[in-house]
Parts: sequence; structure tokens; C-alpha cells
Amino acid sequence: MNLTLRKISKILNAKIQGDSNLRITGINTLKDADLNEISYLRGSKYLEALSKTNAGAVIITSEFETYCPSTALIVKDASLAFAIISQEFKLQTFSTKISLNDDKANEVFLKQGCFIGKNVQIGKNTILEANCVIEDNVSIGENSRIGSNVIIQNSCKIGNNCIISPGVVIGSEGFGNVINNEKKWHTISHLGSVHIGNNVNIGANTTIDRGTINNTEIHNGVKIDNLVHIAHNVIIGEDTAIAAKTGIAGTTTIGKRCMIGGMVGIVGHLTICDDVIINATSTVNRNVIKSGTYTGFVPLMLHSEWKKVGIWLTKLDKIATLLKIKLKNIK
Amino acid sequence: MNLTLRKISKILNAKIQGDSNLRITGINTLKDADLNEISYLRGSKYLEALSKTNAGAVIITSEFETYCPSTALIVKDASLAFAIISQEFKLQTFSTKISLNDDKANEVFLKQGCFIGKNVQIGKNTILEANCVIEDNVSIGENSRIGSNVIIQNSCKIGNNCIISPGVVIGSEGFGNVINNEKKWHTISHLGSVHIGNNVNIGANTTIDRGTINNTEIHNGVKIDNLVHIAHNVIIGEDTAIAAKTGIAGTTTIGKRCMIGGMVGIVGHLTICDDVIINATSTVNRNVIKSGTYTGFVPLMLHSEWKKVGIWLTKLDKIATLLKIKLKNIK
Amino acid sequence: MNLTLRKISKILNAKIQGDSNLRITGINTLKDADLNEISYLRGSKYLEALSKTNAGAVIITSEFETYCPSTALIVKDASLAFAIISQEFKLQTFSTKISLNDDKANEVFLKQGCFIGKNVQIGKNTILEANCVIEDNVSIGENSRIGSNVIIQNSCKIGNNCIISPGVVIGSEGFGNVINNEKKWHTISHLGSVHIGNNVNIGANTTIDRGTINNTEIHNGVKIDNLVHIAHNVIIGEDTAIAAKTGIAGTTTIGKRCMIGGMVGIVGHLTICDDVIINATSTVNRNVIKSGTYTGFVPLMLHSEWKKVGIWLTKLDKIATLLKIKLKNIK
Repeated sequence: MNLTLRKISKILNAKIQGDSNLRITGINTLKDADLNEISYLRGSKYLEALSKTNAGAVIITSEFETYCPSTALIVKDASLAFAIISQEFKLQTFSTKISLNDDKANEVFLKQGCFIGKNVQIGKNTILEANCVIEDNVSIGENSRIGSNVIIQNSCKIGNNCIISPGVVIGSEGFGNVINNEKKWHTISHLGSVHIGNNVNIGANTTIDRGTINNTEIHNGVKIDNLVHIAHNVIIGEDTAIAAKTGIAGTTTIGKRCMIGGMVGIVGHLTICDDVIINATSTVNRNVIKSGTYTGFVPLMLHSEWKKVGIWLTKLDKIATLLKIKLKNIK
Repeated sequence: MNLTLRKISKILNAKIQGDSNLRITGINTLKDADLNEISYLRGSKYLEALSKTNAGAVIITSEFETYCPSTALIVKDASLAFAIISQEFKLQTFSTKISLNDDKANEVFLKQGCFIGKNVQIGKNTILEANCVIEDNVSIGENSRIGSNVIIQNSCKIGNNCIISPGVVIGSEGFGNVINNEKKWHTISHLGSVHIGNNVNIGANTTIDRGTINNTEIHNGVKIDNLVHIAHNVIIGEDTAIAAKTGIAGTTTIGKRCMIGGMVGIVGHLTICDDVIINATSTVNRNVIKSGTYTGFVPLMLHSEWKKVGIWLTKLDKIATLLKIKLKNIK
Repeated sequence: MNLTLRKISKILNAKIQGDSNLRITGINTLKDADLNEISYLRGSKYLEALSKTNAGAVIITSEFETYCPSTALIVKDASLAFAIISQEFKLQTFSTKISLNDDKANEVFLKQGCFIGKNVQIGKNTILEANCVIEDNVSIGENSRIGSNVIIQNSCKIGNNCIISPGVVIGSEGFGNVINNEKKWHTISHLGSVHIGNNVNIGANTTIDRGTINNTEIHNGVKIDNLVHIAHNVIIGEDTAIAAKTGIAGTTTIGKRCMIGGMVGIVGHLTICDDVIINATSTVNRNVIKSGTYTGFVPLMLHSEWKKVGIWLTKLDKIATLLKIKLKNIK
């Protein structure tokens, strides 16, 4: 990695305050950066670290420019600028990853151990890492990266510029069972597929089930973290982000630009409208029809306190009765 | 896919009202089905969709027969009939899956990249998808399907007609550690196994740990969804269904015909009796000795409300003391 | 497996009360052990089982010695002694696991289907199971075991004596996205790594993300169970144990010797001090600055009761207002 500050400033559309010929070999924190590394100021909380930094250059907004002891790259949004430049450094640092057994026909990069079914379409510059399993009739767009050990099952579609992390399963069977005459479960075979749009990221070991008849849909720009479960026929609207360990049950529809925290449980057959934020570890047990921020969990207590609180928690209705409190009085 | 309605009616033991020679090429929703597709009526909620459907035929119970604008297949349970016929369509649609490197000796279908240990027994018509790892001394019954990248560790047993979805790990080490004299963890090696009965389904990326000395047991007819964790020495009774993301800690026994919702946390060393329903995202922190439906979570609120509620929630015992409410008064 | 009791007593530093030449072929429960098997007494709860056991020998503390009907191995901590001897039995029982296609150059054991990148260092006696993917610049210490289908991504480091269970992903991308000018997510590329110390166990299908700039760190002696998510830049202190299905969000630091229960959700940018116990399914939404045991979840209720309680739960603040209860009165 070796970029001049001038090159970086062009990528970021930034103004340089200082030596534009400085060569940058890496990116680092304010605390750890050396003279050939660039850093960035996330906000006023880090002004003291800024004052002591040895970084060769710092990405900064104009409001903090005067505090910068080094060459400054002045931008409108320092966190966004960091995100953009992080991708440049990634490309250079990790470019040796594509190293073994590359098959460059059609400009698709296939690593060792991949299993590709019949009638599969893969767009140009898409990379398949080691030991992927791509079943029959799957299509994957351009410039996507399919991580090691990813499984994409029959007939699923993935768009352009997607990042599917290692261990992800796309197109697994939905969980649907019907009781038969002998009181045993009869499993529904899921005949739908999974359609994933463009610019979608999916985190490691996440699972996305295929639809029963219609498809499970992940729209453009959706970002999904690790170990998330998305059930059959769920629809996730554009640019919604879902943090790790969340589970979404069957046939629930989530709107655009939502932010779903980690380990949220969303029950089935619900609708969540656009621009909703659900805080981590909440349970969504009803439709959300108005944008806003929602929460539902028990705050952490000392266990000795929780034991006393818990007893009363399960008797709230009886306390209300005893005190002759009526719902209509307090709504 | 191309079946006459007569053939379908035989599979479903259904009465045909209309043209029994109609050729059916697919299954679809009431809304989307065309003249060569079959659909089904789940209940009265969908009567309007039924009135407008273009489906060539509809699976329906006799009670709604008069509302059906197309050829009708009259059955006792339309959802069960759909589940049964979905498997016929799956077999035909996805039959091209078994395509590469099949080894038909012993009628076991092995895909590319499978790793089979010593002294492994696999029954006839069982399929192993790509990149499976089957360790020494494992036995798998007949007509089972082991998904891609599944790992079945040493000495585990799987019955007949099981579906093990991609990425599942069966027989991983239990989580048991004992503090030693130097205040460090000493890990217990788990010497038991995992025994899985017949007609069991296990969802993608689920993990099932082996027992410490005795076995972890999953009995006949159990259905388990994606990303579920089943710890060492757990026993799951016949025909119990467990939805996605649930975790069951060590040495807990669950009865027959239970329905455990998604993201339920069940602590260790508990017993749950037969015919218990646990709603999604609940914590099971005690034995359940009476069949019924159980719940325990905080309903979703606007975050601004939750912040006010949360303060009082952690002080319920002190409110009771202040109000001189005693448990004996409200039990 | 065939060890004399004398050999076992030496391993455990135990006193033998009875025939030291007895040959032991297995380990089993008090209930199921036969004359050639050894068992152990976990505590007084199992005294009745002890009185009826057919075990050839029982590991026991001196306090219960007089109740032992068989040859006794007297130790200070029977559970620890069982943990120690379980590893001996494991080595012998499962020694046939390393059976196919071993490449013994450098004393590293590589199973079929492994993919090893450039500039990878692997210490002696370390075993890589089938279909592992080890990317460029990874280093793994000595005597470690890397399970089947494990993925260790670019530049991550693993210490000595580690057990990485099947399906684990180490070094996946962190979940970081910044909104750009067009109100779309711009993904941060994570340039840090994951550093895992010595004597660390990681359970099946767990995921550990790489750091943004600095590293994600798992210190010596940490034990992590299945399906756990550890986000970018998390630091886990020495000898902390984390049970299954727990999720830890980005940049959170956990101290030494903590015990985190199953399905605990820990939000990001928090600090938890040494020697903290968090009970299963709790949410940690604040720093924990004092060692102790903490809890936060709703106890399980009959669903019919929960429905009544839930209404009041969301109105606790309004009840307080109605009753003119003030926080200052009850703190």
C-alpha cells in the first residue's frame, strides 16, 4: 500500500491542508498511527487523542481543523470518508487473497473446492471463495463476492456488488409443518426461492430460507450482520440494516431504511413500516405502523434485586386490582 | 412438472369437482396462479382472493366449495393437502439437483467433496450433498438427505427419512469446564454421542452437541428450525417442534408434542412436560409440569416510554413495600 | 481403552481404596457403569445412585468415602478429576479420527479438502480437519485442533492448545456502515485482525469479526460455546467463559474470569469488569463496574397471565404518577 495524500484527497473529494506529496502506507487510530499513516477524527470526544497523534495526516471536518497538529484532509463527514478510504486499503492489503487455482474464464474467480451446479449464471468480476456450493439454476450478478463455504441453493438469485460472508446458507427450506390425521407433522416443501438485490451484504453463518410459493426478498442496499435468521417469505425493504443474531419469522415484511438492533426477535406475519428503529434484544410482537424508535426488554439488575422484582412483575395485574387502578384512568 | 388433476386427487384422496384431465404444471397462490396451476384456500380470510383467482384448480374444504370459481379438489384439510402435494412438486422441480459425480454403489448418492470416515454406515437412497464431513463410526438410515457442508462427528446416529439442512453440526463437543487448582478452566471431553430418530428435520447451521457420558437424544418426528443450539445431554421428545434461534442448555428434557417458539432460551437441568407451547423469545427458567401455553417477555414500546417504564420496573419490590402490599394479599 | 486403576490414580493424583490392578475400559454414569468402568460422585444428590452402582471404581471425595460400595479413587474435587480423566478416554476412543490423507510433513495433520493460503504458519501437532479454509498470513500455534469447515480469514492469529469447533468463522468483516450523501449505506472495510491466545476453545458455528483498525482480542484461557457472535474490536479477558447463543456488539470489553450465560445480549461500546456473572438471556445495556451476579429477563408465566401483566408492565410510570409515588421516596 502506498498512496500519495493527493490521490487520497481525490478519492474523498477533500481539501488538503499541508504536504500533498506525503506517501501513506496504512490507516490507523489517532493513538497508534505513525508518520506514514493516515487517521481520522470521529468527533470532539477524540480531540485529546488528536492533540497527541503522530499520524502523517488526519481526516477531519472543517470545524476541528485548527486543532489538527498534522497535515489535514478536510471533508464534510469524517466517518464516511474513513469508510470510503477503508475500502481502498482493503483492496490493496488483501489483494493476494485470490491466489490459488483461479479459473479466469469469463472473468469469474473460482477458488478450490467450489461445487457449481447446472445452468448457473455468474456475472463478471464476481469471486467465489473456497468450498462454495452453488446449486442448479442460481444466478449471481457482477462484482459480488461469495465467501468460503457459502451455500446458495437451487434457483436463488443474487444481484450485483453483494458481499456474502463465509458460512451463509441462502435458500434453505422454510420451517413449515402441518399436523396430519395421525397427529404427526407433515413437512411443507418450499417451492419458492430467495431473491437478493444489489449492494446487499450478508454476515457470516446467517441463514435465509426460501419462500413457500412466492419468494423471500432482500431488496437493494440491505445490510445484514452475522448469525441472523430470515424465515420463508420475509420481505426486507431497501437500505434496511439488521444487526447480528436477530431472527425474523415467516411472512413478516419490514420497510425501507429500518435499523434492527442485535438479537431482536420479530414474530411472523407482521408488518413494520419504513424508518423504524428497533433497539437490541427487543421482541416485536405487533405491527409497527409509525416510524420511530422502539424498545422492549428488562434492564439489567443485580441478581439479588431481580429475584425480588421478578415476583412482583408476574403479579402486576393483581397489584392493580388490589389498588383499584383501572386502565381507563391511566391511559 | 406435469400431473393430471386425477393423479393429484389420488395422492390427496380428494373429490374432483370439474375436469379431471386438466394438466397441472405448477403450484401457486390464489392471486398469481394461472390456468395450468393449482392453488389452495387456507381459510375464509382468502375468500376474496378465491373469487378472483385464475387458477386451473383449487384445493378446498367442502364448506367453501360453492365459492370456488374453478375446478375444485375437495379435501378434509386444505393446509395438509397443500403440504402433501408440495413434496410432489419439489421432487419434480428439484430432481436435477443430483447431478455431479454420483456414486451409485449401494444406492447412496455422494456429491463432490464429501469426506467419509471409517466404519460409516449409510442406508439406501440416502443422499449426501457436497462437502459433507461424516466422521468414523457414524450411521445414517435410509431415505435421508444430508445437506451441503454438514458435519456429523464421530459415532453419531441418524435415523430414516431425516432431512439435515446445510451447515448443521451434529456431535460437537459439549460446553463443560471445571475450575482447577490454578483457577483455570479444565475442559471436559464429551464421550457420549448424539442419537437422532426417524423423520427428524434439522434446519440450516443448527448445532447439536454430544453428551458427556450418555447421549444427546432427538426422538422420532422432531422438527428443528435454523440456528438452534441443543446442548449436551438434552432429550427432545417425539414430534416436538422447535423454531429458529432457540437455545436449550445442557441436560434439559423436553416432552412430546411441544411447540417451542423462535429465540426461546431454555436453561439447563430442567424438565418440560408433554404438550407445552412456549411463545417466541420467552425465557424458560423453571420446570414446566403442566401442559399449556407459556410466555415471558416485555411487550414492545416506544423507546421514550420504555425509558420511563424501565426505571419503575427495577423498583417494583420497593413500590410494593412503600404501598404496604404483601404477596399473601394478592396471591 | 484399557487402563489400570493405578494408572488412572497417578493421572489424578488420587488415593486408591481397593484393587489397584483393576482394568478400566470406559467411563460411565453411576447408574449405567459396569464392573470394568469407572464413574464419579458429583455430590450428595447422587448418594442413592452410588449405593446401587455396579461401577468397578468410583471417583469420590473423602467426605463420601464411607458410602462407596466399590473400589474408590479419593480426590479433592471429583468434578475436576472427571474432567481430567475424560480427556484421556477421548484421546483413546477417538484416536482413529485422524485417519485419511494425513500429510505428516512438519507434523501438521491436514485432512482432505483443506485450503491453505500463502504465508501461513502452523505449529507442530496441530490438526486441521476436513474442508478447512485458512487464508493468507494466518498463524496457528502448536497442539491446536481446527475443526471441519472452519474458516480463518486473512492475517488472524490463533495460539497454542486451542480447540476451534466445526463451522466456526474467524476474521469475518465487522458490521459497520456509514450513511452517504445519497442516504445509502457505505460499508466500512475492516482492516484489523483477530488475535486469539492460548488454551482457547470456540464452539461450533460461532463467528468472530475482525477489528476495524485495531484487532478483536480473545485472551488466554477463554472458553466460548456454540453459535456465539463476537463483533469487531471486542476484547475478552483471560479465563472468561461465554455460553451458547450469546452476542457481543462492537468495541465492548469484557474482563477476566467472567461467566456470561447463554443467549445474553451485550450492546456495544460497554465495559464489563472482572469476575462478573451474567445470567442467561439477560440484556447488558450499561457498563458493569462492580463484580457480582446480574440478571434481567421476564420470568415465564402462563400466557393467559402474561397477557394481563403485559398491559400493566407498559404503564408502570403512569401507575406511579397516579399513586403519586416519586423515585426519590423509594431509592
